[in-house]
Amino acid sequence: MIGIIGGGQLCKMMVMEAKKMGLRTAALDPEPRCPAHGIADVHIVAAFDDRQAFEDLTAQCDVLTYEFEHIDAAALRALERRGAKVYPTAASLEVIQDKQRQKEAMAAAGIPVPAFLPAESAEDVRRAGETFGYPLMLKNRAGGYDGKGNVLVEDENEIEQACAALSTGGKKRSFIVEAYVRLLMEISVLACRSVNGEVRVYPVAMNHHEDSILVRTVVPAPLPDSVSESAMALASDVMDVFRGVGMFCVEMFVQSDHTLLVNEVAPRPHNSGHYTIEACVTSQFENHIRAMAGLPLGDPSLVKPAAMRNILGRGAAGPAKVLGMEKALGIPGAKVHIYGKEISKPQRKMGHLTVTAADAGLAAKLADEAAALIVITS
Amino acid sequence: MIGIIGGGQLCKMMVMEAKKMGLRTAALDPEPRCPAHGIADVHIVAAFDDRQAFEDLTAQCDVLTYEFEHIDAAALRALERRGAKVYPTAASLEVIQDKQRQKEAMAAAGIPVPAFLPAESAEDVRRAGETFGYPLMLKNRAGGYDGKGNVLVEDENEIEQACAALSTGGKKRSFIVEAYVRLLMEISVLACRSVNGEVRVYPVAMNHHEDSILVRTVVPAPLPDSVSESAMALASDVMDVFRGVGMFCVEMFVQSDHTLLVNEVAPRPHNSGHYTIEACVTSQFENHIRAMAGLPLGDPSLVKPAAMRNILGRGAAGPAKVLGMEKALGIPGAKVHIYGKEISKPQRKMGHLTVTAADAGLAAKLADEAAALIVITS
Repeated sequence: MIGIIGGGQLCKMMVMEAKKMGLRTAALDPEPRCPAHGIADVHIVAAFDDRQAFEDLTAQCDVLTYEFEHIDAAALRALERRGAKVYPTAASLEVIQDKQRQKEAMAAAGIPVPAFLPAESAEDVRRAGETFGYPLMLKNRAGGYDGKGNVLVEDENEIEQACAALSTGGKKRSFIVEAYVRLLMEISVLACRSVNGEVRVYPVAMNHHEDSILVRTVVPAPLPDSVSESAMALASDVMDVFRGVGMFCVEMFVQSDHTLLVNEVAPRPHNSGHYTIEACVTSQFENHIRAMAGLPLGDPSLVKPAAMRNILGRGAAGPAKVLGMEKALGIPGAKVHIYGKEISKPQRKMGHLTVTAADAGLAAKLADEAAALIVITS
Repeated sequence: MIGIIGGGQLCKMMVMEAKKMGLRTAALDPEPRCPAHGIADVHIVAAFDDRQAFEDLTAQCDVLTYEFEHIDAAALRALERRGAKVYPTAASLEVIQDKQRQKEAMAAAGIPVPAFLPAESAEDVRRAGETFGYPLMLKNRAGGYDGKGNVLVEDENEIEQACAALSTGGKKRSFIVEAYVRLLMEISVLACRSVNGEVRVYPVAMNHHEDSILVRTVVPAPLPDSVSESAMALASDVMDVFRGVGMFCVEMFVQSDHTLLVNEVAPRPHNSGHYTIEACVTSQFENHIRAMAGLPLGDPSLVKPAAMRNILGRGAAGPAKVLGMEKALGIPGAKVHIYGKEISKPQRKMGHLTVTAADAGLAAKLADEAAALIVITS
């Protein structure tokens, strides 16, 4: 029995792979009708800070994982102390969920990252600006996702406002300041390590964001082979830094001279890896399950070029309606995934689609066409 | 909401595809812990001759289908009269589930089939023997599967015994007698028609049976292109005969001169089409769902050569244990499907595995290796 904290789309897709292999799953999520509800064998309806629920989940499961990294690592550590197997481990998670510690760990291991400094105050940010120049990227050390928790600081005059914007709720926040990177493209390299130490690295995918939310992933990324090989080797090195078990996503910047910098690491299957379901021999979700279950990892290689588009909620918030499915599926090679979230909200991830095609450019074109035909709204 | 009569592995695999697309499903099966239990949104626990349960299912669903063809077609017809949409229709099913009528329909449409005659008695079989010569294939007109209901009659002296063997329970049975076909290989061609009349045909797969149970499917079948093209065209012609909606499997014999004869038609996704999950752009299960839901059909073309092996229960009947999963998954390109049946019985279909590889021969070799490593037993 595999326990999964979080019952959203990533959990749903993990559960589907576990089911295929005859493995049982339990999901913990406060939402009674979350995407994994009705597919996971057990659904514990509880808040993510409910320590008793964590214990109930642990009691039922042989191994635990999570679909998002904003979990109380101390709670996971407490479960581990009582013998629970948690993957990735609480120790990995603690380092990764603090962006300052994450970058320190990588820099110490010789992984190229953008220049960074910790900051507790506007004054600290100002000092970083003197070192790095402007613009600067100011981030919350913890808790950000989909661009939330990140602000671009164009010059010194914007510092106070940026710090205020990242300090919602009046709580004192810690920041990390990063030198701004002029980039050619943003890429993701997924990698997986099993409990047995086996590591597999996926092909290089190119990401395109709008309003800091991932919109499109195209694979293979249009890069020279030597650069792709370097990116895959770098992802493998990052797996050694965090000694992670399970799927990891290593987000990187490609600079105009084709040098690589690691931006961030996610300790889980990732939105930019959804293409692996249709386009790779083994999906990121299957390998995550295999990794935790102590099974050999599957071949991650690409079978066919692909492009993935997220399907975000549009219009007002309300009960979700899917429009245009019959049109989108008319695009050759298009596969549509609808997560089954009951409520559509603007910019909420409601589904995604993947198109496989003879080459990546065609896949991207067809994915854009399919994405224009399908609407999820209230 | 899609209703599925039968909650076995075919239902489970249909449900997984429906879930992916955000469609809801209800399964009817007497077994409380059948493979589809806990994945289908609704599970009606009822016998297959429980007409009230059929009505309950119909009341909840927009469209109905079934995972096996031995259903009371009159019950389906009664549901249709009250407005239910059943695919394939009761009219198609009635013809297909009677092997004599099935062959008559095909012969009348010019589809090549083995010579056949109906038989109600040993005397009728004897007369067929005078026409066709020996050996003969004697089959029950209705109710056979996995070779049950078929007997090879080597000569006239075996007729009485063969008729008795096919008349279990002392019930009067009707037979179909077929001329024996000396075959080069047995192939399957899957085809799908949507409610909108769109037809898609899958590549040609070669089947290997042992003890009349499918053991291995390899795709593409090792045939000249012209023969494969003829087989695909023939499958398309068969779809016109039965005006079926949904996935159909057309089983054919290839004779030594490469001429084709249609053996049998199954009005549903088929064991010999499991390879489509990993090896085709669109699986047979996804296209079955799309066909019923009025969605455009997906591309059935092969992405990678593949071989599928069934995993049959071994040893005594009892609670199922899966052994060697970690070894089987170590074979490159191997994917293992475990259906989740609680009880293992000798020769029961407990799971299957598919290996994709650079060519069909290698896939077959690796699939055999993987199959030798995994055991499901009590």
